[in-house]
Amino acid sequence: MYRTHTCGELNIHDVNTIVTLSGWVQRSRDLGGMTFLDLRDRYGITQLVFNMETDPELCKKARKLGREYVVQAIGTVTERSNKNKNIPTGEIEIVVDNLTVLNPAEVPPFTIETNTDGGDELRMKFRYLDLRRDPLKKNLLLRHKLAQEVRSYLNSMNFIEIETPYLIKSTPEGARDFVVPSRMNQGQFYALPQSPQTFKQLLMISGYDRYYQLARCFRDEDLRADRQPEFTQIDCEMSFVVQDDVLNTFEGLVKYLFLKLKGLDLRDTFPRIPYDEAIRDYGTDKPDLRFEMKIKEITSLAKNQGFRIFDQAEYIGGICASSCADYSRKQLDKLTSFVTQPQIGAKGLVFVKFNEDGSVKSSVDKFFDSEALNKWKEVFQAKAGDLLLILAGDSTATLTALAELRLEMANQMGLRDNKLFVPLWVVDFPLLEWNDESGRYHAKHHPFTSPKSEDLRFLESDPSKVHADAYDLVINGVEIGGGSIRIHDKQMQQKMFRHLGFTDELAETQFGFLMNAFKYGAPPHGGIALGFDRLAALFGGSESIRDFIAFPKNNSGRDIMIESPSIISNNQLNELNLKVRQ
Amino acid sequence: MYRTHTCGELNIHDVNTIVTLSGWVQRSRDLGGMTFLDLRDRYGITQLVFNMETDPELCKKARKLGREYVVQAIGTVTERSNKNKNIPTGEIEIVVDNLTVLNPAEVPPFTIETNTDGGDELRMKFRYLDLRRDPLKKNLLLRHKLAQEVRSYLNSMNFIEIETPYLIKSTPEGARDFVVPSRMNQGQFYALPQSPQTFKQLLMISGYDRYYQLARCFRDEDLRADRQPEFTQIDCEMSFVVQDDVLNTFEGLVKYLFLKLKGLDLRDTFPRIPYDEAIRDYGTDKPDLRFEMKIKEITSLAKNQGFRIFDQAEYIGGICASSCADYSRKQLDKLTSFVTQPQIGAKGLVFVKFNEDGSVKSSVDKFFDSEALNKWKEVFQAKAGDLLLILAGDSTATLTALAELRLEMANQMGLRDNKLFVPLWVVDFPLLEWNDESGRYHAKHHPFTSPKSEDLRFLESDPSKVHADAYDLVINGVEIGGGSIRIHDKQMQQKMFRHLGFTDELAETQFGFLMNAFKYGAPPHGGIALGFDRLAALFGGSESIRDFIAFPKNNSGRDIMIESPSIISNNQLNELNLKVRQ
Repeated sequence: MYRTHTCGELNIHDVNTIVTLSGWVQRSRDLGGMTFLDLRDRYGITQLVFNMETDPELCKKARKLGREYVVQAIGTVTERSNKNKNIPTGEIEIVVDNLTVLNPAEVPPFTIETNTDGGDELRMKFRYLDLRRDPLKKNLLLRHKLAQEVRSYLNSMNFIEIETPYLIKSTPEGARDFVVPSRMNQGQFYALPQSPQTFKQLLMISGYDRYYQLARCFRDEDLRADRQPEFTQIDCEMSFVVQDDVLNTFEGLVKYLFLKLKGLDLRDTFPRIPYDEAIRDYGTDKPDLRFEMKIKEITSLAKNQGFRIFDQAEYIGGICASSCADYSRKQLDKLTSFVTQPQIGAKGLVFVKFNEDGSVKSSVDKFFDSEALNKWKEVFQAKAGDLLLILAGDSTATLTALAELRLEMANQMGLRDNKLFVPLWVVDFPLLEWNDESGRYHAKHHPFTSPKSEDLRFLESDPSKVHADAYDLVINGVEIGGGSIRIHDKQMQQKMFRHLGFTDELAETQFGFLMNAFKYGAPPHGGIALGFDRLAALFGGSESIRDFIAFPKNNSGRDIMIESPSIISNNQLNELNLKVRQ
Repeated sequence: MYRTHTCGELNIHDVNTIVTLSGWVQRSRDLGGMTFLDLRDRYGITQLVFNMETDPELCKKARKLGREYVVQAIGTVTERSNKNKNIPTGEIEIVVDNLTVLNPAEVPPFTIETNTDGGDELRMKFRYLDLRRDPLKKNLLLRHKLAQEVRSYLNSMNFIEIETPYLIKSTPEGARDFVVPSRMNQGQFYALPQSPQTFKQLLMISGYDRYYQLARCFRDEDLRADRQPEFTQIDCEMSFVVQDDVLNTFEGLVKYLFLKLKGLDLRDTFPRIPYDEAIRDYGTDKPDLRFEMKIKEITSLAKNQGFRIFDQAEYIGGICASSCADYSRKQLDKLTSFVTQPQIGAKGLVFVKFNEDGSVKSSVDKFFDSEALNKWKEVFQAKAGDLLLILAGDSTATLTALAELRLEMANQMGLRDNKLFVPLWVVDFPLLEWNDESGRYHAKHHPFTSPKSEDLRFLESDPSKVHADAYDLVINGVEIGGGSIRIHDKQMQQKMFRHLGFTDELAETQFGFLMNAFKYGAPPHGGIALGFDRLAALFGGSESIRDFIAFPKNNSGRDIMIESPSIISNNQLNELNLKVRQ
């Protein structure tokens, strides 16, 4: 037996008990004739004491221990004279009688402390050491708790957890599929799922009514900082539901999680904002609603007034930054640099200051007098002391740039309080999205999304006008998940595939099993998938999902700890009947 | 809103309530002027009633509905005159006012009933219809419950659930790895894990203390009826433990699951039988202990007595079948055929009948007189009326054949009661196993298993003598899982790899990250993995795991529903820089 107790549980009630503890040496301090050693395990830290006078040999042994040594100590729980109120075990210490080194440790390549001196690359290579640090341990424990609470809620709502296969079939939009060569079926490949979409729909057709799974998903795409080639989603599907049933159920889940994990009681119904309105008011389909600062359009007021940049613009609009009229030239120049950087791409920034003294000062005074500017003021409902920031150009690009500017101003104004959580639903997404490159429509959500029945009349004449029963959950400007009501009718599904440029033959080869299934009594159904890694990061107060995944990959999709991917033997390639091109 | 209630919840207390139900038409019966229709969903069946006299149009509509149509019905809950005591909704029926067909259904290719007329192949192709049948639905619901209870127990024991990567690295024993070509790292491959072994060990080194995961595992091997290329295991690891700590913890889990899922209170400690003893007494390392019938060896008594087959045998032994002395010639001939079939491979079967009247009759009377045979009787502790069945030959082969004969006799004697569950631990497995084909030792369990300290002295001189801290959990003759205490010392791990034929270089390339990790303070640790599919099958009273997996693959590793694996486009191959050899 290696221990009678963990390093996190002994307290004043255990005084005089003889205990055995095992753990890691966090650090040690020699004070006069005493050596104090902090012994660490997952549960906490307990102080060990060695006395040079009473047991010099043992004390010397203790003084030789390095950081991260694994040791076992037997001793007596004793009340401390110098108590540490910050930790649960801070009132006691162990006067050690017997000390065993279970495993020595070399000096770690970086310090195992909350604030470490290790760089990113080094910590990724020694991830198993990085995972010892408190912040990462807290993240993984939070993730664990989140998983249990998600299941607890969904179980209570009659959802059943069903595992779907990971070895599935590559789809035509398969550029992003990871494929897996089959040895038993040579020349053929499985694909790893980008999501369990078709399987969960089949489960609805099978009558399982409410399904969920914390499913691993795989996407072989170029990775941005916040993407991983494998990630986890809370994948759900429900039968006999309309959009509101899904939203209400998962609004319930999110509220439950906030209560259980953050102690926050979100009472209000989440706003449900149509996609078009989100774009109009916030320039994005994932608005941060912790603050207002809506985008306002002033195209009709400002165009054709002699200012060339406005006159050539399809769209003119901006935001009103409360009480920012005192922004300096330097601050405004910085904002101009911000919006004109290539990632944002605006041509320039127009400002209007409504000073506290009632005067108006703008960067376009040459073209607009104070009467004109006061008309803008009305649109923005600006007050004395406010600052208008205006961009102009193509509609889409300008709204996107304004969305970024809005976030930047909110940052500067301290409006993005990370203790505050404001969830919303964005609903009524467009069904299709024109893609210039491929010269055809792509599904905005995916090919199984149901068009809104009232928009069906446009499906042939103007597909871009058709909205879908599709929705996203957004919290603090982060897209946490999304879903839709699905098509459950074979003819409609066929029609949809045609609109997406599938030949009937290809649709049949790829999704024949699903369309066939629709013939045998498919119920109306819909669902949602929430990003589990992202949700964990949100609750953990971080923007990086990587800190919430035990063994993540880097931006090149590599695990630099195990050195993967790697070459495989010719033998293995031969068995798979494959050749790597030279 | 598609429904106010499910088809499983209405009862006599709901009489006179107006309700809306949705579901599938299970069947309908026309009786005189009435039509009765069973509406089915996941939760149950509710009877709908249509009256030709009061609403002929609606009744005609109902009569047109085929099996598996998806319909919505609005009506009034009414007490039945003809009650069905077998179902919870059997006291009521719905007098329908309004009926909507939500989706029609073609006639399914087989009947959706507990006893179906569909063959295996057809039901696999239409798995989504097969999953509607009650037996499969029960299996998946059981699996769901099992998953929740497993987590509930492990959570209560301070285990934390951590997800490990599915895109890992191919190992040298990688013939059975599925590999995944990387697009971003051309010519390189990930592998899908056969188990999360190294990652869970790293988590122990990271200090997570108790880890679990219901992990998908992948193995590209030839499939027997009861294997799947992807399967799920309850994967666990613990720090600061010796073998008994692991056995006690998971014995607790198994008892908890029997209580929760079967209502069975298994009070006794599970027997812990050393591997050598299991082989000696049962001929197998997964003995069925629902009955005794131990194998007894009589080599010293029976060899060199003039019977050539015995005289040439390395091993002579058998079993005693209680009260089977009345077996007929025909029954004995059948047993002979059983043991001589190629899969069992015995050369012949010797029997001895100890008749009720005290006489002895054997198939070797020519060589052994009744005095000799009575000595055998003592070894077997046989009684009057018992039958001895004896095999002879090479030790290993004969014991294996006797294990099969023992099961066959138990089947014939009705000793394998599927209401009875007898778990045991087989412990002290050999560390290594000689492989004639490769001419070297292979790890019996895996290369990370710790040798027993008392056997270390044989490691160089006679590796076959070294036992390991390795254990299997066996229930009713089925191996449910296994595990071991792991090596946590770099030198020992290096030594082990050498014994397994790894060059130091290969060991470093493949497992350098793990051996490196051992240098930075690795705690003693050990763990276990239980077959989750198999456990579900055991609790479900079935021998086939396939019936407990929503979308299994067939014996060729194919999913014949979605037609996978399949060829992929040249485009995809090019992107991966791969070529299929012609």
